[in-house]
Amino acid sequence: MSNRISFREYHQNIIERVTNRLEESLPAAWRIPSSLREAMLYSLMAGGKRMRPLLVIAACEALKGNTDAALDAACAVEMVHTYSLIHDDLPAMDNDDYRRGKLTNHKVFGEATAILAGDGLLTHAFYLVGRMAPLHGVPAERVVQMTMDLSEMAGPKGMVGGQAADMEGEQGLTELSQLEYIHLHKTSDLITFSLLAGGRIAGAEEAQLEALRAFGQKLGLAFQIQDDILDIVGDEAKLGKKTKSDMKQEKVTYPYFIGLDASRSEVKRLTAEAKEAVLGAGFPDPSRLLEAADYLMNRDH
Amino acid sequence: MSNRISFREYHQNIIERVTNRLEESLPAAWRIPSSLREAMLYSLMAGGKRMRPLLVIAACEALKGNTDAALDAACAVEMVHTYSLIHDDLPAMDNDDYRRGKLTNHKVFGEATAILAGDGLLTHAFYLVGRMAPLHGVPAERVVQMTMDLSEMAGPKGMVGGQAADMEGEQGLTELSQLEYIHLHKTSDLITFSLLAGGRIAGAEEAQLEALRAFGQKLGLAFQIQDDILDIVGDEAKLGKKTKSDMKQEKVTYPYFIGLDASRSEVKRLTAEAKEAVLGAGFPDPSRLLEAADYLMNRDH
Repeated sequence: MSNRISFREYHQNIIERVTNRLEESLPAAWRIPSSLREAMLYSLMAGGKRMRPLLVIAACEALKGNTDAALDAACAVEMVHTYSLIHDDLPAMDNDDYRRGKLTNHKVFGEATAILAGDGLLTHAFYLVGRMAPLHGVPAERVVQMTMDLSEMAGPKGMVGGQAADMEGEQGLTELSQLEYIHLHKTSDLITFSLLAGGRIAGAEEAQLEALRAFGQKLGLAFQIQDDILDIVGDEAKLGKKTKSDMKQEKVTYPYFIGLDASRSEVKRLTAEAKEAVLGAGFPDPSRLLEAADYLMNRDH
Repeated sequence: MSNRISFREYHQNIIERVTNRLEESLPAAWRIPSSLREAMLYSLMAGGKRMRPLLVIAACEALKGNTDAALDAACAVEMVHTYSLIHDDLPAMDNDDYRRGKLTNHKVFGEATAILAGDGLLTHAFYLVGRMAPLHGVPAERVVQMTMDLSEMAGPKGMVGGQAADMEGEQGLTELSQLEYIHLHKTSDLITFSLLAGGRIAGAEEAQLEALRAFGQKLGLAFQIQDDILDIVGDEAKLGKKTKSDMKQEKVTYPYFIGLDASRSEVKRLTAEAKEAVLGAGFPDPSRLLEAADYLMNRDH
């Protein structure tokens, strides 16, 4: 495959396509109060690795599906991710002033607008999922399934539940299983949704969806443990945020429970298992999924 | 129609069915942090007239549709309404301590949990819309359309946009058209969604949907003007909240712009026009919709 672009170029390409699509995702003809539109776009355009969008598209390509439709699902998941960051950063939650080296939403637009910007992004994500049927010809049954997946995995049983458990846990976690619950829902669920969405758009069969689910859960957990590790040993300039923040906030993390070396081994083990799940499912072209897994394991920011 | 129950009984019946369905709307098997589940249910179970659910069901019945499916859409819209109240009551927004005579969500559970409870309700609403296809056999195309309707009318162009405009306007509205924009989006849009959802479940044709849309917009505006009127002349005990709050907050209202008498005439005119829209659309049984319009116009709380 001599014409095949590198994973770095592939990733860069997706960042551009997703960012462009996000920029035009709120129809220009819609009359939206300017402060709200601006606040939503501020956080959407604040950069980031667009890893969840990449996973949507990579899963869709693994099954040779319609990547133009997948781009809408990719933007939807990025909107949900972005809304969750805006709300998490609020004074009542983590009270963060900076995110990716830029002022957080509420520091720029005020708390009320930040809350509404988050609400708006979450709500609009479902519009992008829905429109895949009329706009891109994705069968309505699959779109309905994706709507249910997204609300299950981003809602009270999923990401919102993970965040609530994280906050309950600030009074002190005592078991690794509690931390795993938080990671699984706060992080893995939306990653898993991304993979399932890509698969569903491409018409994945049940066994393939199960493989994508296993891949997502293991990858999400590895991703979060890697985050915990980078918070201890990472380079602040590369991360765009202060390290050692978990320790300062007395947050328990994977390294806290099992040590740094064992945490690193755990990231390797989970990544290997994730890749095995995908390799065993008979996808026509799983290569980008496998590369994404390696990229996430080896990242330094 | 001697066996026909009164509108009061009909309304009471819907309140009971909706409240029961809401109570079991978060699957018991789902593992959800207890603080989050409790906070979501606290506000869902805090009473209220369940007018939006009534309109979903009445619109569905007007076309002789499946009211068991409509009950899920009714619960979805009540969840969206409830989330909007929780977020609106937050200190960063309207900073209210009481709602319907009970402590507001954040006063009981804290701000962080209240934000998450709102996020959870909004997200889960889309689950209830989605499941109408697999659970109640509503055609997937109609469910997709309802998903898009809900995100359009509850999102940045709809309810969230109305709330943002309302907050921008606290610096001082100078024109009635600005106030109309706020009412139309903050209130009418979700009411219109309710009517369209009922119609779509029942397989309404385009002209019938247009009639429901016109009914919803006019009714929603009348509803909000009536609220403004009741804030001036209402009975605090019946309303379950303090009156004259708009004046105290120096909020401009319909009566502020055009006076109390003209506001009352406007409620009558809009209600009459709403009823005409429905009467002209050839629904098999529009009676409950018409009764609902009269009920809303004549209510004293």
